[in-house]
Amino acid sequence: MKKLLETVPNYSEGRDMEKVAKIAACFKNRKGVRLLDCQTDSNHNRCVITAVGEPEALKNAVLDSFGVAVEVIDLNHHEGQHPRMGAVDVVPFIPCRNTTVEEADAIAKELGKEVGEKYGIPVFLYEDSASAPHRQNLAKIRKGQFEGMAEKMQDKELWTPDFGPDHIHPTAGVVAIGARMPLIAFNINLDTDNMEIANAIANAVKNIRGGYHFIKAIGVELNDHYSGRPTVAQVSMNLVNYQKTAVYRAFEAVKMEARRYGVNVLESEIVGVVPMECLIDCAAYYLQACCFGPMKFDPQKQIMENWLLEDEEEEN
Amino acid sequence: MKKLLETVPNYSEGRDMEKVAKIAACFKNRKGVRLLDCQTDSNHNRCVITAVGEPEALKNAVLDSFGVAVEVIDLNHHEGQHPRMGAVDVVPFIPCRNTTVEEADAIAKELGKEVGEKYGIPVFLYEDSASAPHRQNLAKIRKGQFEGMAEKMQDKELWTPDFGPDHIHPTAGVVAIGARMPLIAFNINLDTDNMEIANAIANAVKNIRGGYHFIKAIGVELNDHYSGRPTVAQVSMNLVNYQKTAVYRAFEAVKMEARRYGVNVLESEIVGVVPMECLIDCAAYYLQACCFGPMKFDPQKQIMENWLLEDEEEEN
Repeated sequence: MKKLLETVPNYSEGRDMEKVAKIAACFKNRKGVRLLDCQTDSNHNRCVITAVGEPEALKNAVLDSFGVAVEVIDLNHHEGQHPRMGAVDVVPFIPCRNTTVEEADAIAKELGKEVGEKYGIPVFLYEDSASAPHRQNLAKIRKGQFEGMAEKMQDKELWTPDFGPDHIHPTAGVVAIGARMPLIAFNINLDTDNMEIANAIANAVKNIRGGYHFIKAIGVELNDHYSGRPTVAQVSMNLVNYQKTAVYRAFEAVKMEARRYGVNVLESEIVGVVPMECLIDCAAYYLQACCFGPMKFDPQKQIMENWLLEDEEEEN
Repeated sequence: MKKLLETVPNYSEGRDMEKVAKIAACFKNRKGVRLLDCQTDSNHNRCVITAVGEPEALKNAVLDSFGVAVEVIDLNHHEGQHPRMGAVDVVPFIPCRNTTVEEADAIAKELGKEVGEKYGIPVFLYEDSASAPHRQNLAKIRKGQFEGMAEKMQDKELWTPDFGPDHIHPTAGVVAIGARMPLIAFNINLDTDNMEIANAIANAVKNIRGGYHFIKAIGVELNDHYSGRPTVAQVSMNLVNYQKTAVYRAFEAVKMEARRYGVNVLESEIVGVVPMECLIDCAAYYLQACCFGPMKFDPQKQIMENWLLEDEEEEN
């Protein structure tokens, strides 16, 4: 099977559609790369590309997009609601098919080196590529944003970049590049409007408050629910490693906590594109599909689509 | 997305591996066709091919395999435990990707016409292609087997073939060809060795005894379970339309009936290759993934592998 990575680079331009189109063009008509999505948000003044591709080809597409971003974006004149520190703000590489986090990490580091050398932009490796624990979290790297970054980087011990110069690019700022597992945005709507309950459940299941290792969670108040309820309390989660903290585990944990308050789950929402594996895993859990022995359920062999993917490889 | 059908033709030869190889060769090195599996059973004296492909290409591969089967198999000298009526005994066409039962039916009828004309073999359309209710069930068509078929076909009102001559082929007999939904073989092992309970549950969930429309079920005694239990009672099901009688519904129905006896489910077994859709459907059910409104879960758009399948299309 062909190796594929996903990338979801974020650019600090969400209003000028000509500029956005130039950035997106770097991912089009390119062998081994497919642009899946380009979302702009004018409040955030930001656009988010989603692309998959063979590792080298995908890396080269992102590298070219840095060239465009440096040309069309000047952070000295950028304002928007979303925090940002660079023209290209952040570039995650995510294992997608037949690839590991280690392979995504190797590509992140190649790209970081080339961005530093070619465009003179300081690069901080983050998440699973981070060179130190305090650099894993994107929010910590980005704290101070573009305007505060020059001063922040004077602390050489903490904030010397992994690649590129030790001072910010005058118009393009700095960038975070790194490998991570696919993030699954998974929301659970409760049959209550009581936000205290949603917050209490979020706190019970999230890592930093003693919950599951790879769950991040907050309570969110929904005011435009399609059911017509005036307010629905939601537990909004990011599952940052579905292989280690499974989707079904997060779901059952929320249901279990909700029972304390006599509250039922209305529904869950799986946001955006997710790997088949994370849902097949749920089906296998709930169906108690064999985990052991000769009858063990093997998604790689037993799901027809996995054969079809291989099929097309051989025809190419 | 490219249209793909699956076919699982059965041939009455499971002992002479040279002959089997000649049959299987019809599905190899053929544009638009992929041979997934070739299983032989010497007790049954039968082989079962599994192949997927673009509808026309797949039909032509099966047509060629009739030529080989007519050449190498003589049912006058065939014996085996499995009932059979033809050198090629049965050819189902199954929607696999981006195809409907109607499209599978059209291909089945094209093949039937060509088999009748080219090889002089009587063809009975069965399952979703059947021309009359009494011809839907393969067992009813096959009753009497090769040896009894000449006499059976004298009843012109009931058993005039849909294609081909109205008398059997002297060595290759007759064949059933038809479209059907994928059959999902789904077994549920109970935490009991009591076969009365397994049989009672099977009877409660199966169509002919008042259960779900598309469930066929029997109780089966397992004597070599990997857990070391001397005997495990199993409810063994065929789900013959997973879109209308879902896998999770069959599972929950068995659990619900088992509760009457205070019996738990040990595990389930999904046998062989199944379409991703039937398991994603289970995940969406158990996770209560939104069924309504703007947040509705859409497997076609939200599962990354579905994008990758499309991706490779465009590259071809």
